[in-house]
Amino acid sequence: MSNRVGKQSFCFSNLPAIVSGATIAGPEEGKGPLAASFDWILDEPLFGEKTWEMAERKMLEESAKLALRKVNLQPQDVEFFLAGDLLNQIISANYAARGLEIPFIGLFGACSTFVEALLLGAMLVDGGFARRVLLASSSHHMTAERQFRFPIEQGVQRPLYSQWTVTVSGALLLDAEGNGPRVVQGTMGKVVDLGVSDINNMGAAMAPAAADTILTHFQDTGTNPDSYDLIITGDLGEIGSASLLKLLRMRGYDLEGKLQDCGLLIYDREKQDVHAGGSGCGCAAGVFTAWFLNKMREGLYHKILFLATGALMSPTSSQQGETIPAVAHAAVISAG
Amino acid sequence: MSNRVGKQSFCFSNLPAIVSGATIAGPEEGKGPLAASFDWILDEPLFGEKTWEMAERKMLEESAKLALRKVNLQPQDVEFFLAGDLLNQIISANYAARGLEIPFIGLFGACSTFVEALLLGAMLVDGGFARRVLLASSSHHMTAERQFRFPIEQGVQRPLYSQWTVTVSGALLLDAEGNGPRVVQGTMGKVVDLGVSDINNMGAAMAPAAADTILTHFQDTGTNPDSYDLIITGDLGEIGSASLLKLLRMRGYDLEGKLQDCGLLIYDREKQDVHAGGSGCGCAAGVFTAWFLNKMREGLYHKILFLATGALMSPTSSQQGETIPAVAHAAVISAG
Repeated sequence: MSNRVGKQSFCFSNLPAIVSGATIAGPEEGKGPLAASFDWILDEPLFGEKTWEMAERKMLEESAKLALRKVNLQPQDVEFFLAGDLLNQIISANYAARGLEIPFIGLFGACSTFVEALLLGAMLVDGGFARRVLLASSSHHMTAERQFRFPIEQGVQRPLYSQWTVTVSGALLLDAEGNGPRVVQGTMGKVVDLGVSDINNMGAAMAPAAADTILTHFQDTGTNPDSYDLIITGDLGEIGSASLLKLLRMRGYDLEGKLQDCGLLIYDREKQDVHAGGSGCGCAAGVFTAWFLNKMREGLYHKILFLATGALMSPTSSQQGETIPAVAHAAVISAG
Repeated sequence: MSNRVGKQSFCFSNLPAIVSGATIAGPEEGKGPLAASFDWILDEPLFGEKTWEMAERKMLEESAKLALRKVNLQPQDVEFFLAGDLLNQIISANYAARGLEIPFIGLFGACSTFVEALLLGAMLVDGGFARRVLLASSSHHMTAERQFRFPIEQGVQRPLYSQWTVTVSGALLLDAEGNGPRVVQGTMGKVVDLGVSDINNMGAAMAPAAADTILTHFQDTGTNPDSYDLIITGDLGEIGSASLLKLLRMRGYDLEGKLQDCGLLIYDREKQDVHAGGSGCGCAAGVFTAWFLNKMREGLYHKILFLATGALMSPTSSQQGETIPAVAHAAVISAG
């Protein structure tokens, strides 16, 4: 029990390093303010494949390969591949794992998957079960919309509070021995459900889970907002971010100016018609890897609390009258 | 890297103990040869709920609670809940986690989920990140059939080589400090796909993954079939078990009499019309927990190699012409 911190948190003895990261972004994301930070921007959302699902899988696999290539490594140099995505049976991750041939741990945490993978990967490295762990997650606008809501060809008008599932994949490589920003602590979230049932309003469903994990993290680790340069959320969007600020203010914490949301950073919402901002497994993965990780390497940020939030919604459970449970996991990343 | 063994395997320093386990079985499974071993047999597959999906969720949650109750523990005594199931967005696990309020790690490995959870849980305990980890997986005949094949009301005739998704949930509690059979080693599998595309023939799709993991395990750990009292597979059924025997024989290993498959043990195939045997996330979970774990406690078996195999199939990828990738993970369990 040497690595436990408080009731839901834990620390690492050897601080696994994030030695590499890679991202692939879709055409729409390639028009946004982070365009210059992505490694690869697609000309068209099919990525040369026959279906959008095949395109998403290729994005996930290629970003994982690129993360390895950047540090001159091959798949066989890695002990575990941890990955997940939004699609039923996480087909993007499964088929990418088939191509990579790395022992595979499949995860489902909806949009929380990237931090779930980051924390699990860091625990496997820190526990001595791997030297290197590769992790990845992805989302694709067209695959997610047709699975969770409506096929985009149907042209259904989306409410202004809905978010736009991003077409992005992101991959990170953790190494017990390398250099780079380090994973210092983690807080694994509980599933929280305050009764939101509107599948278009994921921000509202996820904000209470984010608040719960942040408050638990502060309590477990004896930290507060001043302990971090930034607190980043994965994809709360406009509604969710405002709700989170309010929920934390009610508990005595003002995070105005300290909180940044990947879903609000990825698009130029003045020019891009994405309503409440970006969402999807690839949102936290892509924005953290392309933007924040590099800013840490450049010395702009020294210590951040990085959360990814997942709305664990399902068309089946929604049709059966259920509300949307949500979960948020948090990782403390230090510049090195 | 102190816990690595060979290229895909690992060992544990402190040997996490399986201190409790619980199972809930459906009416059909309650008529099979293992009936007396299950903790709870349902009178009807709805378990008092409005839908089969709600019934499956309740089974998963109640089996997890029962595993705790057997050793007088509460959910707050556990650091992590690792769970998954076959349903889209693993809704059985998500909603069970909402009820349990334990920090949640959602997994998807199809029918390999139970051993995926067991190995991850053991790594988290052994790495000092938790004292206790609760893990569970479930499947339900009616929910799986309507999601992956046809609603059962449609009465579609199933080929004789198809397997019968079991209605079972199983949960285990791992503890760093308790007594019970211990998790000694693990081998995490790669995704293997030899081109099977028939979604009714999961045994054929999974056998090559099982063979790959078993052969890698032998090589990594310097063991052979004689090293184990039994080698158990999760749900290969009749076709898959025969294929696995043949694949291993081609590589010089004869496992006749050493290999047992949970899918072949759960039903009386003379009297129950389940074709090639049982399958589903709950099959390995239920049969291992209800039968083999107790036989180890009673001293009948001292060391077993326990594999769960997953056919990572998806209606979406099958409709797009893809073959079925499969994965198998293996855990070495020692009597104490």
